[in-house]
Amino acid sequence: MRLLNWNLLSQSERDAALSRPAQRDPQATAAAAAAIIAAVRRGGDDALRDLTQRFDGVRLQDLAVSEAEFSQAEAALSAVQHAAIETAISTVRKFHGAQAAPPLRVETAPGVVCERISVPVRAVGLYVPAGSAPLPSTAIMLAVPAALAGCPVRIMCTPPRPDGAADPAVLVAGKAGVELVFKVGGAQAIAAMAYGTQSVPKCDKLYGPGNAWVTAAKLLCAGDAAGAAADLPAGVSEVLVIADDGAHAAFVAADLLAQAEHSPEAQALLVTTSRELVERVEEEVRGQAKSLARAAILAESVANIRLLVVDSLETAFGVANEYAPEHLLLEIRDARSWLGRVSAAGSVFLGDWSPESMGDYCSGTNHTLPTYGFARAYSGLSLDDFQ
Amino acid sequence: MRLLNWNLLSQSERDAALSRPAQRDPQATAAAAAAIIAAVRRGGDDALRDLTQRFDGVRLQDLAVSEAEFSQAEAALSAVQHAAIETAISTVRKFHGAQAAPPLRVETAPGVVCERISVPVRAVGLYVPAGSAPLPSTAIMLAVPAALAGCPVRIMCTPPRPDGAADPAVLVAGKAGVELVFKVGGAQAIAAMAYGTQSVPKCDKLYGPGNAWVTAAKLLCAGDAAGAAADLPAGVSEVLVIADDGAHAAFVAADLLAQAEHSPEAQALLVTTSRELVERVEEEVRGQAKSLARAAILAESVANIRLLVVDSLETAFGVANEYAPEHLLLEIRDARSWLGRVSAAGSVFLGDWSPESMGDYCSGTNHTLPTYGFARAYSGLSLDDFQ
Repeated sequence: MRLLNWNLLSQSERDAALSRPAQRDPQATAAAAAAIIAAVRRGGDDALRDLTQRFDGVRLQDLAVSEAEFSQAEAALSAVQHAAIETAISTVRKFHGAQAAPPLRVETAPGVVCERISVPVRAVGLYVPAGSAPLPSTAIMLAVPAALAGCPVRIMCTPPRPDGAADPAVLVAGKAGVELVFKVGGAQAIAAMAYGTQSVPKCDKLYGPGNAWVTAAKLLCAGDAAGAAADLPAGVSEVLVIADDGAHAAFVAADLLAQAEHSPEAQALLVTTSRELVERVEEEVRGQAKSLARAAILAESVANIRLLVVDSLETAFGVANEYAPEHLLLEIRDARSWLGRVSAAGSVFLGDWSPESMGDYCSGTNHTLPTYGFARAYSGLSLDDFQ
Repeated sequence: MRLLNWNLLSQSERDAALSRPAQRDPQATAAAAAAIIAAVRRGGDDALRDLTQRFDGVRLQDLAVSEAEFSQAEAALSAVQHAAIETAISTVRKFHGAQAAPPLRVETAPGVVCERISVPVRAVGLYVPAGSAPLPSTAIMLAVPAALAGCPVRIMCTPPRPDGAADPAVLVAGKAGVELVFKVGGAQAIAAMAYGTQSVPKCDKLYGPGNAWVTAAKLLCAGDAAGAAADLPAGVSEVLVIADDGAHAAFVAADLLAQAEHSPEAQALLVTTSRELVERVEEEVRGQAKSLARAAILAESVANIRLLVVDSLETAFGVANEYAPEHLLLEIRDARSWLGRVSAAGSVFLGDWSPESMGDYCSGTNHTLPTYGFARAYSGLSLDDFQ
């Protein structure tokens, strides 16, 4: 953890304190993604089978998940897991269902009537990565609004495990909104959905996070009118916590760790007016980290946690707006009254009892949010993005 | 004009009939735009002066439009021009002002409250091209929603004329929503607004159409987290008219010509169930074209007008949805009842008395719309895009 006194930093030190990890060799990544896209456009399903063997270590005959595999997935989950998925689907459905814009009809001059009418995107492709952990929550965040929007074609791609099966929780969660799931991952999944293959239908817009190759492939396909549009730029997940001297150190530490355990590069920042809180948070982070399962990841990401001491909450909000975090947690007294100060953040969590984890999984808000400072100009995913 | 009987065409002939002009050498364009961006990031205002001299043929000392130049612009316009600009501002303001989303607050589970709150993008940069004609309408379409959204910083760039002045109508129109206007055009304007220079403030998001270099520069800046987001992919303007045997040939011809006179590459398609209408439209196009000022442009673009005869209106809507036009005109009986068939179009004009030109200038809808088939996944510009 790095402790910094914001008001004593030079401009370049401040820039460094708020810097994000640079993308590793973006040109090589783009070139690799372009080669995969070309292979899929040329070879179709055969190319997908070859690339899946190469990257996921399994040779698949059928790329589509069968009814039998869906049934096996249902049976593989415990009652508690089913209930958790149901709860998340229910809350996400409630919040996104309320987002439908009412029809707009305005007579702008005598006899001149202007209307705004939203229609669903015809075919949407959802990508659910597996990476260091399968993400049934992502399946819910994408499939529920796609179904609510009424997109006629809704498909999902997710990488197979080495045994050739898709993650059962992802399949059960995906059932909330998609009919067809393909066991394809990486840039090859993006290419398949953007251009279509013998088995994968061509989609008009693609959604969901992914690694650097997935992101590069989405960007390439979105730039091609014959490809598919993309939701929003994806990057390393991040949290910025603003806390005052009344915050619970144990809660702040848990929130920083919840983000830090995402990946070795995950970004977690605390901005606080209380030097004393920082000490207690450091202690709590060290203590709580011991009981967490993802020790290898935390060993790297905890070292990168930044603890910034500022002279006032006004300064704290200035820092937050400059950083434009994906997640902004306000663990301060009367948090709501400060909300008007937030000019750039993907999702804001108000008060001690609103942890980011709730938004990640089951409060009902979407967890597909702008990272890397893109919150300055992008909103998180909502129903409109499927219309 | 090319007359085609849709139902007799092979699949490849149909694809050709609905094809759009390919971008000329996109890699060279991107490389040129990248070089300009690099020059502006390195040289700031000096680079802008050099590039303006090179591309616009004028050496400017002050890049910002002065108060005196604004006053001169006001004085240069006739009362009729002022009134036209006022009318357009009024209707665009009415329609976009009604687009503000009401606050959303949903209790998704006992004690779990999710909200959606929109805040304005902090700094927006509007680009108004000059090209073959200055576009005060574009200034209105961008500046009015930016002001309604309450974006704290709102600037505009537009190329200077050879005499060093900006187009007066663009300046007067821009006053509807921006405070600062810079006489900079092309990729250099995009670079200046995305990264900032000594005189041009750095913006978070850029808006507006432009030529291939402008579009390439916007794409490059949008892919860089340190740059600026972009509104939507811009391309050659296009119209698709669906007409039945009750349509007025003179109106259909005028609508095709209104689009064709945009540029030599402008795309105008008629899809009709009436072979007889086609003949009358061809005649009307030839006749009306003679009285239009932009003869050189029309000589090229009229030859490219496509007249497709289909067997039914159902087929016509299938063709339109496949093409996904920027502008869709329904010159058919009971046009409103067919609206539900439209799944992809930027802006739809209902009935014989709703010409595209109204939307281009002053009905109140935004004329910044998805071209090149992007209507399959993008909407036209609206208030949300500034939030």
